[in-house]
Amino acid sequence: MSERIGVWFVGARGSVATTTTVGALALRAGLAPPVGCVSELAPVARAGLPGLDQLVIGGHDIVGGSLIKRAEELATGGVMPSALLSALTEELGVVDGRIRAGIRSADGDQRAAAQRIEADLRAFRDDHDLSRVVVVDVSSTEAPATESPELHDLNRLESALDTGQSPLPASSLYAYAAFRAGCPVIAFTASPGPRLPALETVAGQAGVPWAGSDGKTGETLMKTVLAPMFAMRALKVRSWASYNLLGGGDGRTLADPTHAASKTATKAQGLEAILGHPVDGPLHIDYVPDHGDWKTAWDMVSFEGFLGTRMSLQFTWSGCDSALAAPLVLDLVRLISRAHELGESGPQPALGFFFKNPVGTDAHSLSEQWNALVQWCDRLSAAGQHP
Amino acid sequence: MSERIGVWFVGARGSVATTTTVGALALRAGLAPPVGCVSELAPVARAGLPGLDQLVIGGHDIVGGSLIKRAEELATGGVMPSALLSALTEELGVVDGRIRAGIRSADGDQRAAAQRIEADLRAFRDDHDLSRVVVVDVSSTEAPATESPELHDLNRLESALDTGQSPLPASSLYAYAAFRAGCPVIAFTASPGPRLPALETVAGQAGVPWAGSDGKTGETLMKTVLAPMFAMRALKVRSWASYNLLGGGDGRTLADPTHAASKTATKAQGLEAILGHPVDGPLHIDYVPDHGDWKTAWDMVSFEGFLGTRMSLQFTWSGCDSALAAPLVLDLVRLISRAHELGESGPQPALGFFFKNPVGTDAHSLSEQWNALVQWCDRLSAAGQHP
Amino acid sequence: MSERIGVWFVGARGSVATTTTVGALALRAGLAPPVGCVSELAPVARAGLPGLDQLVIGGHDIVGGSLIKRAEELATGGVMPSALLSALTEELGVVDGRIRAGIRSADGDQRAAAQRIEADLRAFRDDHDLSRVVVVDVSSTEAPATESPELHDLNRLESALDTGQSPLPASSLYAYAAFRAGCPVIAFTASPGPRLPALETVAGQAGVPWAGSDGKTGETLMKTVLAPMFAMRALKVRSWASYNLLGGGDGRTLADPTHAASKTATKAQGLEAILGHPVDGPLHIDYVPDHGDWKTAWDMVSFEGFLGTRMSLQFTWSGCDSALAAPLVLDLVRLISRAHELGESGPQPALGFFFKNPVGTDAHSLSEQWNALVQWCDRLSAAGQHP
Amino acid sequence: MSERIGVWFVGARGSVATTTTVGALALRAGLAPPVGCVSELAPVARAGLPGLDQLVIGGHDIVGGSLIKRAEELATGGVMPSALLSALTEELGVVDGRIRAGIRSADGDQRAAAQRIEADLRAFRDDHDLSRVVVVDVSSTEAPATESPELHDLNRLESALDTGQSPLPASSLYAYAAFRAGCPVIAFTASPGPRLPALETVAGQAGVPWAGSDGKTGETLMKTVLAPMFAMRALKVRSWASYNLLGGGDGRTLADPTHAASKTATKAQGLEAILGHPVDGPLHIDYVPDHGDWKTAWDMVSFEGFLGTRMSLQFTWSGCDSALAAPLVLDLVRLISRAHELGESGPQPALGFFFKNPVGTDAHSLSEQWNALVQWCDRLSAAGQHP
Repeated sequence: MSERIGVWFVGARGSVATTTTVGALALRAGLAPPVGCVSELAPVARAGLPGLDQLVIGGHDIVGGSLIKRAEELATGGVMPSALLSALTEELGVVDGRIRAGIRSADGDQRAAAQRIEADLRAFRDDHDLSRVVVVDVSSTEAPATESPELHDLNRLESALDTGQSPLPASSLYAYAAFRAGCPVIAFTASPGPRLPALETVAGQAGVPWAGSDGKTGETLMKTVLAPMFAMRALKVRSWASYNLLGGGDGRTLADPTHAASKTATKAQGLEAILGHPVDGPLHIDYVPDHGDWKTAWDMVSFEGFLGTRMSLQFTWSGCDSALAAPLVLDLVRLISRAHELGESGPQPALGFFFKNPVGTDAHSLSEQWNALVQWCDRLSAAGQHP
Repeated sequence: MSERIGVWFVGARGSVATTTTVGALALRAGLAPPVGCVSELAPVARAGLPGLDQLVIGGHDIVGGSLIKRAEELATGGVMPSALLSALTEELGVVDGRIRAGIRSADGDQRAAAQRIEADLRAFRDDHDLSRVVVVDVSSTEAPATESPELHDLNRLESALDTGQSPLPASSLYAYAAFRAGCPVIAFTASPGPRLPALETVAGQAGVPWAGSDGKTGETLMKTVLAPMFAMRALKVRSWASYNLLGGGDGRTLADPTHAASKTATKAQGLEAILGHPVDGPLHIDYVPDHGDWKTAWDMVSFEGFLGTRMSLQFTWSGCDSALAAPLVLDLVRLISRAHELGESGPQPALGFFFKNPVGTDAHSLSEQWNALVQWCDRLSAAGQHP
Repeated sequence: MSERIGVWFVGARGSVATTTTVGALALRAGLAPPVGCVSELAPVARAGLPGLDQLVIGGHDIVGGSLIKRAEELATGGVMPSALLSALTEELGVVDGRIRAGIRSADGDQRAAAQRIEADLRAFRDDHDLSRVVVVDVSSTEAPATESPELHDLNRLESALDTGQSPLPASSLYAYAAFRAGCPVIAFTASPGPRLPALETVAGQAGVPWAGSDGKTGETLMKTVLAPMFAMRALKVRSWASYNLLGGGDGRTLADPTHAASKTATKAQGLEAILGHPVDGPLHIDYVPDHGDWKTAWDMVSFEGFLGTRMSLQFTWSGCDSALAAPLVLDLVRLISRAHELGESGPQPALGFFFKNPVGTDAHSLSEQWNALVQWCDRLSAAGQHP
Repeated sequence: MSERIGVWFVGARGSVATTTTVGALALRAGLAPPVGCVSELAPVARAGLPGLDQLVIGGHDIVGGSLIKRAEELATGGVMPSALLSALTEELGVVDGRIRAGIRSADGDQRAAAQRIEADLRAFRDDHDLSRVVVVDVSSTEAPATESPELHDLNRLESALDTGQSPLPASSLYAYAAFRAGCPVIAFTASPGPRLPALETVAGQAGVPWAGSDGKTGETLMKTVLAPMFAMRALKVRSWASYNLLGGGDGRTLADPTHAASKTATKAQGLEAILGHPVDGPLHIDYVPDHGDWKTAWDMVSFEGFLGTRMSLQFTWSGCDSALAAPLVLDLVRLISRAHELGESGPQPALGFFFKNPVGTDAHSLSEQWNALVQWCDRLSAAGQHP
């Protein structure tokens, strides 16, 4: 019998987790085709990835309520077809029953909080006889971490925790606990999460692989295919304006400039890395509740060609962020699970294909990232047969 | 002293040839930076390419008039800065003096016509002591060739020519003569040119390299970076509408549906090749004189993601076709010249990066084409030192 | 008790009629607000219009099937919310029961066909004790009528009908029968319908008002507010390209250039009338089944300002044609019903506000049309109290 | 002989003033047609407006340099054709010679500053034997005025000035001086200018007409034709996002949020006034030096139609602000000059057609404003024959 693999969402009742959960259940029930699933493409699938029927889903969330009701709301907003839900009501209820109360604030005794999270993860693994549990952060984006020595040095961090302090952002607290429980981590948001030197040490000690950060689903995806085009054609990008309109929970969070800072920093860096020079132009993320779970991005690129001729490209991307993110989450769970099985540990730059701010690599061009992913899958494929 | 290389334009007073000529002169005089020149990017430049100062320009055209005046018209239309022209007046006059009368029609005794073209090419090579002459077709797009046995079999073609017939489209007649004169050929338009089985035989016998066809400068360039994005992300493109507005000579020619047929066929094929399935949606090329030398393309892509969610991408490309084409022409001249020097012959699939309808390859994705080009340049680099 | 008014759709199971029917039922049940209903705006409502609860709906259609099922299909396509339909099932069934078989072809004995239509209309009026019946053509767009003397002269038309000929397009046959039955007519499509000299004579004899033609719902609506802006600002429009993508039944019909001819002619004329000079630029209507009941229009306007400066405006309209048309159909029914009550007859130019090709007026500017409509409503208001 | 009329620019070497000056000279020399000039349209021209050949141009500016050089820079940026300038060099030099040093800061003794401005205006009128001098503020946008009692009460203002204080923003100081000199004023920017209660009293005492404020040239122009369309069709606008990219001096000023506040307030108010309810959505003005004198605006409108159907409209406006503004400045000069001639005084709501923030009226709809303008011109026409 195939091994069973746990998927533990931080933010399990959020839009992305809910869509991912519904999608995993629907796909394995044969109710929907795997559109958007990179792991179903031949060059990736050959890595020997676990099947969706092997996944067992649970998670933490700070909000209560019912997963089914959340799914119905998303269906009303056009994120998924309502018709799908009636067939999945029972299974969604089962997942709902596995969701534990999350940490409402990063304040208070973080040692105790981390221990509770770790215990939840271990219990989930034991109760369901799971070979491994992949922890996926899909909760709301936090502000960038405030610099402090505890974030850079594990010893100082441990001391701070031992003395009842709360040095970590919530996302990093979850990553800390996950690593301590021996779980691979996927940082799908722009929150600090595992991307602190002290936490990288924890991951290294635990010998688990992790990947991040900030899923590349829309405007940035476009940038990382268009910017290489200008570069390969020796055209000079003179300005690139980026405007994003989004509603939903993510939009509300990002309407707070403090939280948005993580995101805008992440979105801007790829362009410069690809073009080799900074590019002028505004980048706004605006919250418009009316847009619901949909995002509209308008980008205006002004570029110079031969003999100084000035030209332009503009695009409007109209996408559903949760629907774009969910299959990538499933891809990442399957890929990192396979990597864990084969003993990989530490940051996984080959998974940069999925992220705006890829850890451990400077490659932002989507095609370069694709090539790196495929090579990595080749290696995984050669490394061992999947049972 | 460096060898001298001839560039022979078919359509030497057209927008693309004029812009290329002005650009070559301006760049080598240090009056403009090589923006848009792929051959100046390190991974391509290392192939050991000839310098722009080695180029000697001439050509055929069926229209008279002055190259300087044509350049001034283009400058008025914003294709190049007027200020550039005053410094180049004398040199443009010299090039003008080398332009010979082209073949006004493909009718009549094609044997005689081919002999005259060939003689012009040989005279140009001899008069200027050129190591080689690259023939570049940048004349107006012709209708697709009417099928006939003469186009498939060189013996039948020769017989037809011997008996005073006119089996060849004009663009192919030029290619025939060029190959007979031992000249590499670049088919920069969508006209049949060298892409007939009988002509491929001529090229093979002559041992010269050739490349084509139909320069990829705007909307199709965009398609060949965006379609791979959808493919790599397993998103399902459901329809792709393509609208092109252009003025200028090219627009006028393409307003004739017979001529446009070559172009629309060429533009459509890449999408299907990249996505692996046919894609619904109209493709129009409309002539709007008011747009002058500028092209505006609007594309509307409707795609499906996870659980059937429907999303869209639209873009507006506003480009100057001649300004986009000219540096690529210079790139191709330098690259094929180097290939000829190193003894390459026949169709050059590695130059597919530059074309909508690349000969000898199914690769349409720009990044795949770039990788092929870079590998080829590595090979050229290894093959020999350029004097 | 208020009088009851019949609404008789030609094409009663089409998208527009179905949406209008569902909407009328939903609004009078208080299930939806009257968004999109011009007749609910104060300056129009004051004309003393009949209420939606006074309307009794029936119609002809050449296709069978169930209205409820048609409505469900539209709901799936996003034209209306599914939730609305369950409450209206019974009433939709009642309307369905009133739909009579339409004329499948304009061939055959048109005298007999006209008599049958007229009888259906009279029976509907009698059976439901209706004060009047408004006939609304919302069937598929026909090709322009072929010129013939019968279309210009009523005597010749009658003679042709008497001798078993079939001189009329189907839409005109319906209009003929409607006028003969004393019914006001609304020509909501671009089909010839009542717009033939011979039929205008019939309408005059019958003393009934009629309005048309071709509902102004999307791109043309935009044109008739933007073109006046350029005119009022003395800016010179140099070209205006119009591209339309649509799926659904209307798209399929218009994919046939013969049928589209009625539509494209209608769409083009307003621009010239407003600007005072012809404007260059293509106008395409493309059928893309993937777009369903939705229409996307992209327009690119190039204009010249002070001292020859060239500027541009482009817009993308993404609308649901049936949802835009349906409330206008209700508006027209209420307005023409009131006009009929007050003894108006003949073409009603004041209703030009609703049409691409307004009868009896050269006014295409939306604001001019609005002013004319409001003045007309003032007059109707003054003319009598509505019981 | 016709009377001569002075035009006095505050900001006489700025983009708008320079373009207006070049344009006035070019038009009266017959070098360019009056495209963009509303005052040349028949219903406006009939008001009996002065000719462009009657205008004598001068002004204040805080920057030195040559008007010809400024015009050449604008020509390089595509705002006007270079070819035009050579014929106007001499006349531009004459205008240049009439430009006086402006007030560099609103600090210091404003009474003295006002006296100097007033003296400059009187000298200009006397020296050139002008019937009247129209003062036009086309200088950089200032921050909104800080509330203070002096701005509301003329007595308090005069007292403050008498005691060497500086209560007025610079734009208002110019307006004060202009009114004192008996000059009509046009507030073409969003700066406070004459729009302070205390200054309105000064204008009333002087008996001069004035108009403002903030010329409506681009995105807001579009809004005031599109919003009425939604209103007339009873469609419900749910959100309206407005993004503006501009370079040039105006962009640089507006990149400072303090200065932009005047502008964004002005831009937002029309929408609410037309639709009758506040509308959600961001409004950004971003400075991108690369865009030069051009402005690109992208607006995304989300609206609801029948039965809750959600639709959208987006547009991209690419305009040259100076080229759009300049002919309107000439229109306003001619119109207010005529009003002054006929004894009109105080704010002129009929000129609201030209402004984002029209004084003395709530009408923002362009067509309503047009109707008001035309009626006013009819009245002026009837009031007297122009000599």
